[in-house]
Amino acid sequence: MGTTLPTLQDIIETHERIRSYIHRTAVLQATSINELAGCDVFFKCENFQKIGAFKARGGMNAVLSLSKEQQQKGLTTHSSGNHAQAIALAAKAVGTTAYIVMPSNAPKIKKRGVEALGGKIIECEPTLAARESGVEKVIAETGATFIHPFDNYDVISGQATTAKELIEDYGDFDVMMAPVGGGGLLSGTALICHYLSPETEVWAGEPEGAADAILSFQSGKVEKAPYINTIADGLLTNLSERTLGIIKQHVKGILLVNDEEIVAAMRLIYERLKVVIEPSCAVPFAALLKNKEQFKGKRVGIILTGGNVDVENLPF
Amino acid sequence: MGTTLPTLQDIIETHERIRSYIHRTAVLQATSINELAGCDVFFKCENFQKIGAFKARGGMNAVLSLSKEQQQKGLTTHSSGNHAQAIALAAKAVGTTAYIVMPSNAPKIKKRGVEALGGKIIECEPTLAARESGVEKVIAETGATFIHPFDNYDVISGQATTAKELIEDYGDFDVMMAPVGGGGLLSGTALICHYLSPETEVWAGEPEGAADAILSFQSGKVEKAPYINTIADGLLTNLSERTLGIIKQHVKGILLVNDEEIVAAMRLIYERLKVVIEPSCAVPFAALLKNKEQFKGKRVGIILTGGNVDVENLPF
Repeated sequence: MGTTLPTLQDIIETHERIRSYIHRTAVLQATSINELAGCDVFFKCENFQKIGAFKARGGMNAVLSLSKEQQQKGLTTHSSGNHAQAIALAAKAVGTTAYIVMPSNAPKIKKRGVEALGGKIIECEPTLAARESGVEKVIAETGATFIHPFDNYDVISGQATTAKELIEDYGDFDVMMAPVGGGGLLSGTALICHYLSPETEVWAGEPEGAADAILSFQSGKVEKAPYINTIADGLLTNLSERTLGIIKQHVKGILLVNDEEIVAAMRLIYERLKVVIEPSCAVPFAALLKNKEQFKGKRVGIILTGGNVDVENLPF
Repeated sequence: MGTTLPTLQDIIETHERIRSYIHRTAVLQATSINELAGCDVFFKCENFQKIGAFKARGGMNAVLSLSKEQQQKGLTTHSSGNHAQAIALAAKAVGTTAYIVMPSNAPKIKKRGVEALGGKIIECEPTLAARESGVEKVIAETGATFIHPFDNYDVISGQATTAKELIEDYGDFDVMMAPVGGGGLLSGTALICHYLSPETEVWAGEPEGAADAILSFQSGKVEKAPYINTIADGLLTNLSERTLGIIKQHVKGILLVNDEEIVAAMRLIYERLKVVIEPSCAVPFAALLKNKEQFKGKRVGIILTGGNVDVENLPF
């Protein structure tokens, strides 16, 4: 694993490394959304990415950066979903086994996705302690390498390639927005904007019901959320020192939205943009709509992070 | 209105005429769909088109092909949805009024779409007779020009630009598939494939519950469906002599699917391709899945026609 902050050259090499394993995803715009938002919004559609989420990028880079010997002993992680599929995909790509510790309440579509990629699921109680001890057991038994979902510079460098493509394909933006959970995507996005387009303001959207990142951003140290209760099931984790360090330096601010606002934004994306997204994915757009005046007339890039949702259980 | 079959040159000129008013829509692929279908499928996403459907192309071309004087007197049509929005959009583009006769049972999202574009809705009973008399009244009162949803060579030429883009961007296909309602898209698709890629087999999907086109294709004259009962609400109309003439000559065959197969295909497109489509739009993919052996290993283009669906009423 990379032990220092990814440089621009690192991220360029990351992109070369993973390019043939990922999609260069489409970017969509909709006139009616621009009218509604009062600005010019470019949606980078990582819901169209392999495994239906940007996590394919970071997972693939972390695994491809391991030695052949490490790869052969297998990979392991704990994840409620998209990162699990990312590691299963990367394991398949390099011809090794992925041991995925998943909480029993993970969405069915994400479990099915791991299985379809040949990943071995080890179910556990839906607590962080159970997840971590599940992974420790796998490592003890197999010698597999643990790939953390975000607290890993190779993962962060992989996630940075999302905004890199958006900037390469559509030029500089006034504002770039991403959701924040553990901060892997947000820190990668902030880093690459800092390198390629330093005038771009990077903003995050965060659910009120998992509001740890905004507290950490304010206090300067990793904080827990006051409570966890949100439909945005992909954004429940805390930041790490690693992601917070980058976020403190290169992110302009974090905007909170409640579940009603998330669902309304999600519905607009289904109705106007015609794409399937998961609730977590709607958070930055919800934050944009809640703060229209602030972004009025700007050129805004939004990373649509993923589309793995049980379509028979949409919240509208 | 063009009075002769569109030539290749006509379709090229059509594309130039409408290019700045429409999106060159994205094309999506998904590994898991290719594995499931046993062939290499390219989805041309006209659900991302202006007004959320390919109809923007034909409507725009028909209206831009009118004289300024005709345009100024206004435009009218009857439509349950997407063509209505297409004419409202074209009217807005040329600065005139669209008088849209809509059946009272048209999907809400399609009505709201017409209103949002400034179209004037005249509601009528959901019968063809009521729709036609509504349009006659508008013409008598305003002198507006009637733009038929498909029985119009300028509309057909506009719809042909969809497959034209797909072939230009991705090369020749073994098979090209589209749904068939009135046959505007299908005849345009068949024409442009005939001109640009004559080896391509053009196949249509049709709902069992609105199976007029297959009967017409077999008998050689315009037939009615034995009964109308399908979730594919955009495919209820019969062919016209004009569209049947092209379809007889350039379409390889028409494949029937039932509503269960349509809903299953629609759900797969939501889950695997991550895009929002309306039921009619899933018909060709359902036909492909039902006839896998026939298309095994082929390079298949499928036109995803539209995404205007009430997302709170999805059939799964």
